[in-house]
Amino acid sequence: MEDNVVYVGSKPPMSYVLAIMTSFNRNTEGVVLRARGRAIPTAVDAAEITRNRFLQDITCDVSIGTEQMEGEEGRTRNVSTVEITLRKSPEALNPGGVSQPRRQDKAA
Amino acid sequence: MEDNVVYVGSKPPMSYVLAIMTSFNRNTEGVVLRARGRAIPTAVDAAEITRNRFLQDITCDVSIGTEQMEGEEGRTRNVSTVEITLRKSPEALNPGGVSQPRRQDKAA
Repeated sequence: MEDNVVYVGSKPPMSYVLAIMTSFNRNTEGVVLRARGRAIPTAVDAAEITRNRFLQDITCDVSIGTEQMEGEEGRTRNVSTVEITLRKSPEALNPGGVSQPRRQDKAA
Repeated sequence: MEDNVVYVGSKPPMSYVLAIMTSFNRNTEGVVLRARGRAIPTAVDAAEITRNRFLQDITCDVSIGTEQMEGEEGRTRNVSTVEITLRKSPEALNPGGVSQPRRQDKAA
């Protein structure tokens, strides 16, 4: 099992939510959303819609970066990037909690 | 010392870079950039410009969320938010390494 990458562009957020759900249904552990420039809010939208409406039990790690892109006149320009890693939480991957011991908050 | 908050809107990224630098020069430990919707890439730009050009020794934590906003017809709509926390790394806050023990990689 490995992470699947979804590249976020200019489509509506729900297109990417669908891609994320499809990816999770193929039993991947995590899905990585990658976006740059003006597509960044769409990636955040897709992650938030997935987390709030469809898969409440996922964790969300975000990192930002910079990429150099070739401009029209051969000049390079910097563009900001975002990488959002969605992962099923341990409880979700193992619903019965049989093989993994749970934290015993009430026992103490 | 506490964190200063910079709200990112529709100005060019350099305006917010200036606000971040001013904040760090007032001896704050950290600066929090908050943005929502289409201002999110500007916040990422400002953080990246600060980190790449002005303050190489800062760490960057990003979290995403959703806010409910009142629409024009009284309907609420969801908008994505981003919070980027910039912090000076321990080495930068304490350049001489006198009062805080450093990790002794070479001693072992």
